[in-house]
Amino acid sequence: MPDTAIPPSYPVTPMNRVKRRHDRGHYDHETVHAILDSSAMCNVSYVIDGQPYCTPTLFWREGTTLYWHGSSASRMLRNLSKGEPACLTVSHLDSLVMARCGFNHSADYRAAMCFGHATLVTDLEEKKRALVMMVDRFFPNRTAGLRQSTAKEIKATSVITMEIERASAKIRAKGVGDDEEDYALPIYAERLPVRSVIGEPEACPRLMPGVSRGEDLKAYQPGRTLDEALREAYAEAYGG
Amino acid sequence: MPDTAIPPSYPVTPMNRVKRRHDRGHYDHETVHAILDSSAMCNVSYVIDGQPYCTPTLFWREGTTLYWHGSSASRMLRNLSKGEPACLTVSHLDSLVMARCGFNHSADYRAAMCFGHATLVTDLEEKKRALVMMVDRFFPNRTAGLRQSTAKEIKATSVITMEIERASAKIRAKGVGDDEEDYALPIYAERLPVRSVIGEPEACPRLMPGVSRGEDLKAYQPGRTLDEALREAYAEAYGG
Repeated sequence: MPDTAIPPSYPVTPMNRVKRRHDRGHYDHETVHAILDSSAMCNVSYVIDGQPYCTPTLFWREGTTLYWHGSSASRMLRNLSKGEPACLTVSHLDSLVMARCGFNHSADYRAAMCFGHATLVTDLEEKKRALVMMVDRFFPNRTAGLRQSTAKEIKATSVITMEIERASAKIRAKGVGDDEEDYALPIYAERLPVRSVIGEPEACPRLMPGVSRGEDLKAYQPGRTLDEALREAYAEAYGG
Repeated sequence: MPDTAIPPSYPVTPMNRVKRRHDRGHYDHETVHAILDSSAMCNVSYVIDGQPYCTPTLFWREGTTLYWHGSSASRMLRNLSKGEPACLTVSHLDSLVMARCGFNHSADYRAAMCFGHATLVTDLEEKKRALVMMVDRFFPNRTAGLRQSTAKEIKATSVITMEIERASAKIRAKGVGDDEEDYALPIYAERLPVRSVIGEPEACPRLMPGVSRGEDLKAYQPGRTLDEALREAYAEAYGG
């Protein structure tokens, strides 16, 4: 009876328990993964010699495993096999919220924080597969129609992977939330939506004659939110 | 002769030197600050017991000083006077770039990483001033028309500040950049713009009669990019 089963969830420990506004916290896979899959970019935090670094990068998810581009962190990871602690965070700003007092000014947002140990993908076949998905997760089946990667290109790219050991999602979606007595004040308040929107595709001016936009990009239509396009592409790429 | 002066810049050390694609790196105040001021949200990284945390939060800048909301980090900072190392990062995704091979798939983006030591704002007058700017930086002069903050509200809010000791900006804005020989291949390539756009304001349904949207929100018009509105509001709030 799968419909009565407890949905899969990340374990909750002091590391990932949402402390401030814990009513906004979620730990189930479905909520955390939906926030991750709605974004192309994340921020990854590492520690090098006690100094935290917060690096924005493209990323994607497979089950409870995350992948991202190497960037400067690959230097740190190069000789490690068991991984370094890392935190990968995705956030979406959904609105600015103007209230009747400063304290209740806020924002609607969806954020996911994932904790684990980051390691370099060193196995060549696994790395090749990851590099295909680095493209195809966003643009399903695109790699099959591309000029294939050279050994030099594969070598020049670092792929990092991290199993999600702990995760939390934090969501605010309530718009204006003033103190009850403040609603009687003659002060303007609003929720101002913000969306990440896809613009008009700019085809490369050097396309060969007769080459046109393919099915791999069909989710990315102008005017659509990036969230929605990314989730649709994800579902197609991973058959979900 | 100010027009021949060297523009102010952040010092470059191994901590903030852009290593991968260093041609995309910038260290001058103008470039770094423009990226910061175009965003309402940042990601802040801290280390607690060797574990990095990457927390999204609202923030703002005054000169070379950053401010943000406390969140769970305030627990760590409560008893420290000299501060903990932190990294505050802002990133804007400007496009997805589909190339003719996997290796040249990319994104146009603007990102700024700022390094320093984070401390809690404990002086009451400084904290009050910061809480005004936490609203007025985004909505110029808004606080003057709000229900004033109570002592309890001020106490319940943590404000963290960090002088920018090191910073770097990294910008990619070139769209499709394929290997010269690949342009002859019959493969579709494009730059797909992405923008963070302001939607229709949703006025609080419980407004008192006759209350309308004021000048403090005039930068935030539907259809505008959030970047542009935030920069305009910033210039008005700080007279710059």
